Amino acid sequence: MKIVVDAMGGDHAPQAVVAGVVEAIKEFDVRIVLVGIQEKIEVELKKFTYPGDRIEIVHAPEVVGMDEPAIVPIRKKRDSSIAVGINLLKEADCGAFVSAGNTGAVVAASSFILGMLQGVERPAIGLVIPTLKKFSFLIDVGANPDPKPEHLCHSALMARVYTQKVLGVEDPTIGLLNIGEEATKGGGFVKDIHKLMEERVTHFIGNIEANEVFTGRADCIICDGFVGNVVIKVSEGLMESAATLLRREINKSPLAIVGAMAMKSRLNHIKKLADYAEYGGAPLLGVNGVVMISHGRSNPRAIKNAIRATIRELEHNILTAMIKEVSGNHRLH
Amino acid sequence: MKIVVDAMGGDHAPQAVVAGVVEAIKEFDVRIVLVGIQEKIEVELKKFTYPGDRIEIVHAPEVVGMDEPAIVPIRKKRDSSIAVGINLLKEADCGAFVSAGNTGAVVAASSFILGMLQGVERPAIGLVIPTLKKFSFLIDVGANPDPKPEHLCHSALMARVYTQKVLGVEDPTIGLLNIGEEATKGGGFVKDIHKLMEERVTHFIGNIEANEVFTGRADCIICDGFVGNVVIKVSEGLMESAATLLRREINKSPLAIVGAMAMKSRLNHIKKLADYAEYGGAPLLGVNGVVMISHGRSNPRAIKNAIRATIRELEHNILTAMIKEVSGNHRLH
Repeated sequence: MKIVVDAMGGDHAPQAVVAGVVEAIKEFDVRIVLVGIQEKIEVELKKFTYPGDRIEIVHAPEVVGMDEPAIVPIRKKRDSSIAVGINLLKEADCGAFVSAGNTGAVVAASSFILGMLQGVERPAIGLVIPTLKKFSFLIDVGANPDPKPEHLCHSALMARVYTQKVLGVEDPTIGLLNIGEEATKGGGFVKDIHKLMEERVTHFIGNIEANEVFTGRADCIICDGFVGNVVIKVSEGLMESAATLLRREINKSPLAIVGAMAMKSRLNHIKKLADYAEYGGAPLLGVNGVVMISHGRSNPRAIKNAIRATIRELEHNILTAMIKEVSGNHRLH
Repeated sequence: MKIVVDAMGGDHAPQAVVAGVVEAIKEFDVRIVLVGIQEKIEVELKKFTYPGDRIEIVHAPEVVGMDEPAIVPIRKKRDSSIAVGINLLKEADCGAFVSAGNTGAVVAASSFILGMLQGVERPAIGLVIPTLKKFSFLIDVGANPDPKPEHLCHSALMARVYTQKVLGVEDPTIGLLNIGEEATKGGGFVKDIHKLMEERVTHFIGNIEANEVFTGRADCIICDGFVGNVVIKVSEGLMESAATLLRREINKSPLAIVGAMAMKSRLNHIKKLADYAEYGGAPLLGVNGVVMISHGRSNPRAIKNAIRATIRELEHNILTAMIKEVSGNHRLH
């Protein structure tokens, strides 16, 4: 099994990526192709000892910046690590592509170069989010901000396969994110989706309101890419603002500082539960290939866990299973 | 100045509402009309001493349940406190209507009975949210889930007036909630709104990503009612889930319990900063009348503060100012 990793993607590339890759080959039975600027990758690799035959480098002289338009790897930087890496997935005997780089660029290049999965019209990004129960799978968090009802239905079907095969949830429930519980709530758009999902999606439990996203009421939560992106960003922002406020208040009182120190080990435990690095990456579903998008701030552990998730996808033949599910010819059990 | 209050609205009605009204008349120079089931209101009023000529009761035998369809006060329960109360606003010499009842029903009945404000096509609900700076005004949080670009532009113009006149922000900045900072981000819908707002809205600072909702970067944050509703509910849900998780973790360690006790006064201070009761209610903007929707869980303080906000609206002739702003004939300074 050979996995392509974008060495230049993310805020801490290539250091964090290379360190994560070395961790991965020590832990998993996998071979890695690092794509990016060769000399920079070599400098990082020299810091480690590892079985040399398990990592190869493919030189890609260009880098897509985190803020460049999504179209860049297709139009301008065809020698970027993103474009070269995804082409390797298509042409060589590689099974998956992992990148912590520019999300829009990975989505656009994957859709363009790999094409769509049979029966699927648009890509969607899923994200594992921590909940009071354990975790849920939120999809789409940003690939398709303006979908048709059919697209969300496909996301639901693919999410069911991913959650079951990769995350190990036995018979995943599917909820539609809406602004009320009743089927009649929301605008015309979500009402159409609700109807379609009732007809086509196994174990559809109806609408989920946003205050239940983190309670774990549904294993998969389906929404359009605009709303899903708002959900994860408002949550990130709120936790950061709350933490800032908390620090500001604690520092006003010596007693509170001592109190916070006494609570530290429990707070760290919560921090770990909510750590994106635990889940590694966000799978890009709907394209004709296994692609994993990692957080721009990925540390080595996040990269390693992203690689682990793609290994599970490959072991479970996730693409074939999704094609079957979307075509209605599914056999999940 | 006479303000109509829905005595039957909210989870703790009529107790909390009547108690809040009594607080309000002691604090503000205002007269209140309590609408609802007369005998129930009288039972509550008997618990207090207050200047009797400042509160009158108008009997309304029906109550709209919190989960009933929005259309109920218009079609079926025309003798409900919501329908009777809003009619009083239209027909009698009353200046405003406050309700902690069924939000959809208040929106529908207000739009139907009062009609729309000159130049405005659809209503929008605004909400004051606490931020790291002080507060921001988020609009729409649920009245109009399927708006046209023009509707969001009107919301922005009305928000500017409300924030300046009622909340006292000198020259409010307006941000558009989007999934990227650049003008080209998001679906076709938000791009159209962005263009329209650039042309028509004073002090428009462009797109705001959802992770900046609570940092206070923009005084007013504009979005459609679906997205706004998701923002407030996901935030509420996340804080509740985080608190549950925190309690669960703290209870695992005696040291952490002591630590939490030591931090208590600072935590309570934060709780107060984030308390919706401080801001009282969410103004329903765009209808031809001053209507304030309070949280279903409103306590007496929330009701009192909602009344205070309507008094400010009336003192500043907010409806006239909004008509001028929307028509382009504005003079805010």
